[in-house]
Amino acid sequence: MTTSQLVQEIKRKKSFLCIGLDVDLNKIPEHLLSEEDPIFAFNKAIIDATHHMCVAYKPNTAFYEAYGLKGWKALEKTINYLNDKHPEIFTIADAKRGDIGNTSTMYAKAFFEDLAFDSVTVAPYMGKDSIEPFLAFENKHTILLALTSNQGAFDFQTKTVEGKELYKQVLETSKTWENSENLMYVVGATKAEYLGDIRKIIPDSFLLVPGVGAQGGNLQDVCKYGMTDSIGLLINSSRGIIYASKGTDFASAAAGKAEELQKEMAQILS
Amino acid sequence: MTTSQLVQEIKRKKSFLCIGLDVDLNKIPEHLLSEEDPIFAFNKAIIDATHHMCVAYKPNTAFYEAYGLKGWKALEKTINYLNDKHPEIFTIADAKRGDIGNTSTMYAKAFFEDLAFDSVTVAPYMGKDSIEPFLAFENKHTILLALTSNQGAFDFQTKTVEGKELYKQVLETSKTWENSENLMYVVGATKAEYLGDIRKIIPDSFLLVPGVGAQGGNLQDVCKYGMTDSIGLLINSSRGIIYASKGTDFASAAAGKAEELQKEMAQILS
Repeated sequence: MTTSQLVQEIKRKKSFLCIGLDVDLNKIPEHLLSEEDPIFAFNKAIIDATHHMCVAYKPNTAFYEAYGLKGWKALEKTINYLNDKHPEIFTIADAKRGDIGNTSTMYAKAFFEDLAFDSVTVAPYMGKDSIEPFLAFENKHTILLALTSNQGAFDFQTKTVEGKELYKQVLETSKTWENSENLMYVVGATKAEYLGDIRKIIPDSFLLVPGVGAQGGNLQDVCKYGMTDSIGLLINSSRGIIYASKGTDFASAAAGKAEELQKEMAQILS
Repeated sequence: MTTSQLVQEIKRKKSFLCIGLDVDLNKIPEHLLSEEDPIFAFNKAIIDATHHMCVAYKPNTAFYEAYGLKGWKALEKTINYLNDKHPEIFTIADAKRGDIGNTSTMYAKAFFEDLAFDSVTVAPYMGKDSIEPFLAFENKHTILLALTSNQGAFDFQTKTVEGKELYKQVLETSKTWENSENLMYVVGATKAEYLGDIRKIIPDSFLLVPGVGAQGGNLQDVCKYGMTDSIGLLINSSRGIIYASKGTDFASAAAGKAEELQKEMAQILS
């Protein structure tokens, strides 16, 4: 999917909501545990109930890998279901990968070819030759960790490196990489006050913003400092939506939570 | 496996060699491609031929994920084979993971419980709360990227952060984390000249050292600057060993290459 197709979808749906599919078998409704594939059954119900209110889904790979083969199979079924039924939806493999060149190419193949996601999240620590192999894929998007939503972001990301914070060095350096137009960035909603500075470095790039909801980030603040003429934001909520209820009404409860956010977004867009 | 068990094995085998199982279907002998599971068939043959000359195996997860479900299944079979047949061998999931706290716990479960590896590699960018969930697992080892073997290491890792290089900040900060005794570190063999400084910060920790062989690192230099009284080194070679031949003699050719390194190590240890 191209960035302009994503922007069109945002305008059509009046939503820049991304729903995180972080499926923990200890948190999903008990009646699903007797299904042949409880993880996929949960995802399918959530997708069926919420797809008209969001423009992106983001499974975090950790939650699938934790269940081994079964989990990887559920991830495969989920991305195939999304690509079959809702090809207009932007898909994000939240995998935070990164390795030396030839190895990053294998990761890129895993998520862009074998699983056919539109995008994957990557970590910057290993530098240019760990990210460029992802950027080489046409019409695929590589979402680089810049300033994350967790407390540990202050351990290294906000430390000053040769005159400016590490996350700013990451942003600036990444702009020099080949095919950098395929980059998006992760900036946590809990760090909304940094968005003004971030927009000075990357005025137009799309940001994937986790941390609204359970982690305490505020939608209004993120939009105030981070929105561009082409929106430029994907706001992710995971637990706040998908675990709205543990009963048989879980999918409609999730839809209710998604609708609250979508309505707030529609108002901001108008 | 405890660190002292690993040291005992190193002394018994006169080897601190780790073999990287980075299986690329384009590089393995063609006659294996007709096997039901070519990846596992390749790994099994390599393990059978080399296990007495090394103390660790390190599959890089990228090479398995690239083949989807089939690949993940081959990874599962490989770790199960190692744990069944060679429980004395230290196993490393080279996965370079890291995420916010509850998500890192899922990754730790994936590699320490579901796949039962002894250790996993992790990336430091997201800080303390992205790594401590791994460190909480008893008798499991978390191998933190410090100074990697690739060119991109100079993009951020060697940049000066508040008076010292980022990789040194990572080393020092990581020592303050809970259960930091479960940490090991990745330092590339191509950066041997940095090992003196690194040993001032972490005098006793085990280092996983990739980059000998195909990437150009030198074993003698690494040992000169990095070895401790308890050895403290695992030297990894992947392509240089496993792709020594593309013929039906691939396993014995790999054993030959492993033996060359093992003999060099035995001499250094004596």
